[in-house]
Amino acid sequence: MQFTSETSFDGILEQLFTLGDIPGVLWTREGAVGPRPLILMGHGGGQHKKAPGMVARARRFVTEAGFAVAAVDVPGHGDRPKDEEYDRIATENQARVAAGAELAPLIADFQALVARQTVPEWRAVLDAVQALGHVGPGPVGYWGVSLGCGLGVPFVAAEPRVRAAVLGLGGALASADAVGRITVPVEFLVQWDDERVPRAQSLALFEALASTEKSLHANPGRHGEIPAFELESALRFFARHLG
Amino acid sequence: MQFTSETSFDGILEQLFTLGDIPGVLWTREGAVGPRPLILMGHGGGQHKKAPGMVARARRFVTEAGFAVAAVDVPGHGDRPKDEEYDRIATENQARVAAGAELAPLIADFQALVARQTVPEWRAVLDAVQALGHVGPGPVGYWGVSLGCGLGVPFVAAEPRVRAAVLGLGGALASADAVGRITVPVEFLVQWDDERVPRAQSLALFEALASTEKSLHANPGRHGEIPAFELESALRFFARHLG
Repeated sequence: MQFTSETSFDGILEQLFTLGDIPGVLWTREGAVGPRPLILMGHGGGQHKKAPGMVARARRFVTEAGFAVAAVDVPGHGDRPKDEEYDRIATENQARVAAGAELAPLIADFQALVARQTVPEWRAVLDAVQALGHVGPGPVGYWGVSLGCGLGVPFVAAEPRVRAAVLGLGGALASADAVGRITVPVEFLVQWDDERVPRAQSLALFEALASTEKSLHANPGRHGEIPAFELESALRFFARHLG
Repeated sequence: MQFTSETSFDGILEQLFTLGDIPGVLWTREGAVGPRPLILMGHGGGQHKKAPGMVARARRFVTEAGFAVAAVDVPGHGDRPKDEEYDRIATENQARVAAGAELAPLIADFQALVARQTVPEWRAVLDAVQALGHVGPGPVGYWGVSLGCGLGVPFVAAEPRVRAAVLGLGGALASADAVGRITVPVEFLVQWDDERVPRAQSLALFEALASTEKSLHANPGRHGEIPAFELESALRFFARHLG
């Protein structure tokens, strides 16, 4: 793990790093010492580790709860090079949708493919970040919607350090296997008028979670329009389970 | 409005009252002076204004947010006499269900009938309680699930003083008309394994609300098993909209 830059703003320390060829970012309270809960965040499709929504959430998690927050670029996103195989599949999928194919199953298959790479990457990132003195081996939460849900479901299912997860804007199609192995508390976000994920698929994913505690939060609006108050809710959810 | 008893415990003033033949209770912070937000709570079927869940919610709303909280007995419940017509219908409905009829539409019709009495009653209670110096003409919230939802939907639709409502454990069957006239923010509670309200009916009620801001919160479990953390969420919801 190599740190490539370190800046402080408004009481928050932001450290950019690379782990092998994975570019990442770690946010902590300035002057933080000793172990603390860590939130790993997965970004949405076409976004990256420092997209505005990611930074805004990280600020709240760090400032209000004292968590450490880490995020990395998904292959083909942010500071990572284009991935030729993923690009080829994405182009093929666009052509299939243009020819009348259903979007949701194509997205689901694609995310399942990418997850085979990201699950081991994210576990390695957890190892590295938790080895730092100002993060340490505290409880871990995962936050990810849309692509961050498609990649998050197999990650949360595989990683016993994750004790609670906020997921959403995703359907049950591809991750059916992994979703039934998730037993930690989940807050699951659904946009009631999601133009990308069929509502029935969203409800089926919620249904399939094996967690004893799981809350479906559905709000009106399209895929990208999660209301701001859900961040407040996520914060309290993580505080309850990791605090 | 006549006060029939007044007790204080743990910083909370509890005043029992009657308004005509409606028995009610008002909780406020001890020593409270001047206007404050008011939550009107509707109790569930077979319960009453001071059922344990009602008292527990009132305590949190008063202590943590400084709200005034009022509740009254629904006809045929608590300190009110049996209502012969309602009793007769309830007995008939039990016989119909025993003979194989669907429960949900019968409940819905029954609640619509009772609401014709409770909507004007509850509006009169609002008038009376808001005329008190330690409550005053502040914003009003409504909290009610199950019977409290069946009676609450037509009340919230009819009463412009209500600015936000927590509803749930109810279906769209009978209140279809009223539900489409609700435009205030709503937090809507669904129990995913509700044995009394079919899930599709619950989702249809949420769908039919005309509110721009509405959040469906669904949790696993049966009709009576709303998890405790939803009270925390309701508190923040009311604080956001009435505070």
